[in-house]
Amino acid sequence: MVIVMNEQATEDQVEKVIAALTQKGYDAHRSTGTTRTVIGVVGASKSPLDPREFEIMPGVHEVVKITEPYKLAGRIFKPEDTIINIGDIAIGGRAIVLMAGPCAVESEKQLDIIAASVSRYGARLLRGGAFKPRTSPYAFQGLGEEGLKHLRKVGDRYGMAVITEVMDTSQIELVARYADILQVGARNMQNFTLLKDLGRIRKPVMLKRGLSATIQEWMLSAEYIMAGGNHDVMFCERGIRTFENFTRNTMDISAIPIIKKISHLPIIADPSHGTGLRDKVIPMARAAVAAGADGIMVEVHHEPEVALSDGPQSLYPEQFAEMMAQLRIIAPAIGRTV
Amino acid sequence: MVIVMNEQATEDQVEKVIAALTQKGYDAHRSTGTTRTVIGVVGASKSPLDPREFEIMPGVHEVVKITEPYKLAGRIFKPEDTIINIGDIAIGGRAIVLMAGPCAVESEKQLDIIAASVSRYGARLLRGGAFKPRTSPYAFQGLGEEGLKHLRKVGDRYGMAVITEVMDTSQIELVARYADILQVGARNMQNFTLLKDLGRIRKPVMLKRGLSATIQEWMLSAEYIMAGGNHDVMFCERGIRTFENFTRNTMDISAIPIIKKISHLPIIADPSHGTGLRDKVIPMARAAVAAGADGIMVEVHHEPEVALSDGPQSLYPEQFAEMMAQLRIIAPAIGRTV
Amino acid sequence: MVIVMNEQATEDQVEKVIAALTQKGYDAHRSTGTTRTVIGVVGASKSPLDPREFEIMPGVHEVVKITEPYKLAGRIFKPEDTIINIGDIAIGGRAIVLMAGPCAVESEKQLDIIAASVSRYGARLLRGGAFKPRTSPYAFQGLGEEGLKHLRKVGDRYGMAVITEVMDTSQIELVARYADILQVGARNMQNFTLLKDLGRIRKPVMLKRGLSATIQEWMLSAEYIMAGGNHDVMFCERGIRTFENFTRNTMDISAIPIIKKISHLPIIADPSHGTGLRDKVIPMARAAVAAGADGIMVEVHHEPEVALSDGPQSLYPEQFAEMMAQLRIIAPAIGRTV
Amino acid sequence: MVIVMNEQATEDQVEKVIAALTQKGYDAHRSTGTTRTVIGVVGASKSPLDPREFEIMPGVHEVVKITEPYKLAGRIFKPEDTIINIGDIAIGGRAIVLMAGPCAVESEKQLDIIAASVSRYGARLLRGGAFKPRTSPYAFQGLGEEGLKHLRKVGDRYGMAVITEVMDTSQIELVARYADILQVGARNMQNFTLLKDLGRIRKPVMLKRGLSATIQEWMLSAEYIMAGGNHDVMFCERGIRTFENFTRNTMDISAIPIIKKISHLPIIADPSHGTGLRDKVIPMARAAVAAGADGIMVEVHHEPEVALSDGPQSLYPEQFAEMMAQLRIIAPAIGRTV
Repeated sequence: MVIVMNEQATEDQVEKVIAALTQKGYDAHRSTGTTRTVIGVVGASKSPLDPREFEIMPGVHEVVKITEPYKLAGRIFKPEDTIINIGDIAIGGRAIVLMAGPCAVESEKQLDIIAASVSRYGARLLRGGAFKPRTSPYAFQGLGEEGLKHLRKVGDRYGMAVITEVMDTSQIELVARYADILQVGARNMQNFTLLKDLGRIRKPVMLKRGLSATIQEWMLSAEYIMAGGNHDVMFCERGIRTFENFTRNTMDISAIPIIKKISHLPIIADPSHGTGLRDKVIPMARAAVAAGADGIMVEVHHEPEVALSDGPQSLYPEQFAEMMAQLRIIAPAIGRTV
Repeated sequence: MVIVMNEQATEDQVEKVIAALTQKGYDAHRSTGTTRTVIGVVGASKSPLDPREFEIMPGVHEVVKITEPYKLAGRIFKPEDTIINIGDIAIGGRAIVLMAGPCAVESEKQLDIIAASVSRYGARLLRGGAFKPRTSPYAFQGLGEEGLKHLRKVGDRYGMAVITEVMDTSQIELVARYADILQVGARNMQNFTLLKDLGRIRKPVMLKRGLSATIQEWMLSAEYIMAGGNHDVMFCERGIRTFENFTRNTMDISAIPIIKKISHLPIIADPSHGTGLRDKVIPMARAAVAAGADGIMVEVHHEPEVALSDGPQSLYPEQFAEMMAQLRIIAPAIGRTV
Repeated sequence: MVIVMNEQATEDQVEKVIAALTQKGYDAHRSTGTTRTVIGVVGASKSPLDPREFEIMPGVHEVVKITEPYKLAGRIFKPEDTIINIGDIAIGGRAIVLMAGPCAVESEKQLDIIAASVSRYGARLLRGGAFKPRTSPYAFQGLGEEGLKHLRKVGDRYGMAVITEVMDTSQIELVARYADILQVGARNMQNFTLLKDLGRIRKPVMLKRGLSATIQEWMLSAEYIMAGGNHDVMFCERGIRTFENFTRNTMDISAIPIIKKISHLPIIADPSHGTGLRDKVIPMARAAVAAGADGIMVEVHHEPEVALSDGPQSLYPEQFAEMMAQLRIIAPAIGRTV
Repeated sequence: MVIVMNEQATEDQVEKVIAALTQKGYDAHRSTGTTRTVIGVVGASKSPLDPREFEIMPGVHEVVKITEPYKLAGRIFKPEDTIINIGDIAIGGRAIVLMAGPCAVESEKQLDIIAASVSRYGARLLRGGAFKPRTSPYAFQGLGEEGLKHLRKVGDRYGMAVITEVMDTSQIELVARYADILQVGARNMQNFTLLKDLGRIRKPVMLKRGLSATIQEWMLSAEYIMAGGNHDVMFCERGIRTFENFTRNTMDISAIPIIKKISHLPIIADPSHGTGLRDKVIPMARAAVAAGADGIMVEVHHEPEVALSDGPQSLYPEQFAEMMAQLRIIAPAIGRTV
């Protein structure tokens, strides 16, 4: 942190700022220029500082944070890429992984039909919601444990790993019994109780970006999980909320190269939620891979027009096949494979 | 819902849309114009319809929702204002209520000093966080049950009702034992598990607006609580996230008259979080009252410079007194009192 | 500007940064801490520095700007309030001024009916568009010079000053011939050619905030006009673009106390465009006055249902009267009059 | 437009809505359901309707627009792709075009060095600002006509077409004398006077998206130019303003497939302004091509650290070469070439 004093700041005001820092256990490093004084806050940080506490002190012009508030999730802490292994699937390695399946698990039969086709075309992970967060209390809320059982059974049948959402601390134990990766939904990205409890398990977690979460807040939510001891965290960009309402959300493709630079954790892209429109899913999946994503998660349904949720953003199985063919052409441009 | 067909839509396409509606248990009301056909969806709604399901059917130009997805929270369901009574405090009545206290409960002594002054100046409810949602896992997380005990004891001492945040389903029973109103924080506005469980208790709930929540989503989150049987819900506007970063959030004052029109539930304004800057709290409290808010919640601290959280947005007790004096002048402009 | 070096930065990297600063004519003030080096950029600034130029130099951790880029528009340059006088009207003084009239000038008769009533109820300035910026090329574009003549004639008849929009440099001379204040619309806030040319005239300018303009960009646009020699500039908050679409725009009421603090220029609030909904105009006008606005601009029409533009956000004359009565109650809360 | 009446709407209210429509020259098509009445607005539209005019009539529940407000820019008007030819360069054809050059023209020598390298690596158009829109009045404003002369001379030397910005109506004639494509900057996207005047010339125009412009507003700005008779318009996505401030803007890659679907006009992507960070330019250029862009515009500078503007987002020539190599791998995935 750097504290910049006013040009008119008195010696007394400067000393009070330094005293406040010292009292909080920080070293203050003063440098007096010709026109103003700048105080650098150095040394070990024992407790986090709120810059605004200093902004309101007399004589202070501006306060600037200079250290990232995250540690474990950052590349400075761990320069090499984290690779998360689930059986023979390596997330974050050279191969881009595909996660596909229906928005919601509706029945074992539905799941079987979809898994059969997407696994044939190259998907390694099966997705599907058993617990569904729905904006309206009157919408379909998921099959619960029955859905988890279908996921596990069908995943095993086709040699696929299973990823599904956990909505609340009370569901962690249950979901972890069936799933290989636990997904935290966008609306729960800052459900800190849930994040803390996920830090105590030993299964990978996929953390979706909140609708209005900055990249720094997203990093800090990963930090919550990692601080508990669970370092197998991957991000998932799924669109942010902006003024544009042509698409359901605005997919922030630039978050992909940013995360790859500041963090060692893998990042997945979800163009189904990112756009909400079936015919935009494939172009955005291509864009995400071209930008450097470690994986793609898409919703696929054999009969989207009768799907219980999000049918309009689900691909048909043959579209999924077409998408895979295109991604295979693009991946070598950045030294990767699909 | 109204389904507008393309000008080139065939008779067969129109009939397929009608068949899909009928199959889902809706009545389709067709009206054929000179250039295009419009299908009105009328009758009783058994299950919610996703407009996008119809948008992707051949021949469909556009689908428009015409009924609000909320019921219990809307003025159509209940035209007269809801008044929530806590002892002799009536929230939503003619008198505007003031909720004040520190951001976080730090000790009984701290709380006592603050409560003594704000109650003297007219605050009827004592606020203070015992469980704190913090963006960083390394920040102060609250005193937990000890904080709740302080709140109850000090509140009783000064004849104040007590409001505090509940962060997770597992805390409901505990928090409800001490508090008069349970607060749902902005980051939990769409924690649907928590909302559902709050629907089962019989204590009032204050629902803060999510950082990027539309007014309709906010109404639906209230609906979640009410659908469970708990109708004592009040809203709290606390700023939304925009591109402007001069303030911590952009307080959406217009949400106040909007909620007052579409809902019968009370709405409180929180200018402390709405702006994040002490010297903007009083002007925005005045604006909120002028716009029709049923109450104001502010953070007050006798020593904000040493507060464990959010000191820079906390008022000094004497500023609280000054604010009260100004609000007393403004309230009569809209036929109310402070 | 403060340049913060990495903890691992080499002596050579530090020296290159200092050399780059020196070459650009700045004094670099180095302070070496135990863990890192911080370089303060002091001395007279000859040309503006782009912080990003330094961010990309090897060894640099972060660059922070510490001086506001505006000068003439800031309170540091001129601590006392600017009062803009037009005849006996003082904008920015103790009395809050009211500007009212139709969205677009449609005829002399229309303008006369509206001006007669709003002036009777206390409006001192007559507003009305002669040149209309319309999103669609197929919408009504205004009466042009004929409209300006109506404005001047009717304004003089009722002793009102006249404010109207100028859309392009080529219109300045014409508009300035008839109007007392020239208005720059939101979509032109960064039309720098227009701003520069307005700096050369000697008539007051009202600068509306752009739909996605930060407060700092808004200040800099005022700076463009002032740098040309025209210091009679007032701001107008008229709503920003956010994700919320219940209202046409989200009126940023907090911009009012912010501008009052950082600038000496007056600020007007326009709740008609700020909300786009007639029944939200009065609550938001009350809020703006309570927050400290120096004036209110509203659209008033005696027959809004047949208005050529923006009828749905125009007040009826009797609503204008009601609003004035409420504002008269609120103004004393902040030591002002209406 | 479809007008949905309240369930309680009276026969008289329905008739008044129909009368208002008839008076404005529209045909009203009434369909009375069991619970409510819906009125379809059909027939030829003589003047644009403001839906809000009807929303405020008694008995009206909601009004929905069903026809796009643009015509000439839409695919319905012209289903086949528009290809804009400049000499032997075809924008919007099978080959993806590259536009490259410095942010601002600084000297003929600077331009020559840059043009020599980018043309060798495959750029067909030379970009460079002669008139620069700058947020601060104290920043470098461009070389003016001298810069235009350099552009033309250097462009001709390397067989490149020339694109540069026109900031005001008064500059059109001058810029058109030297440039092959006139660029409208983001801040001028709704400078309607400028758009209208560009409709009268016969040179292609590249229309950048405004910082907070919806796709529909962007289409309408293109419509302004086309309505004047100039149909050679291309779009340029350059990032929108959101809450995320890690990047300068948030590049909306999904706008590319959307524009390709609803419009026949070409779309170019500008990852330099879209991200503002050099190391994000190449990933985003790859993403834009993968999503279907017809061209890429990037800033290239041989000495970005001494560039007079936007150095930090400019590529080095060798990075441009690397980018071209990657784009050549990606283009075939969507049946195109670079």
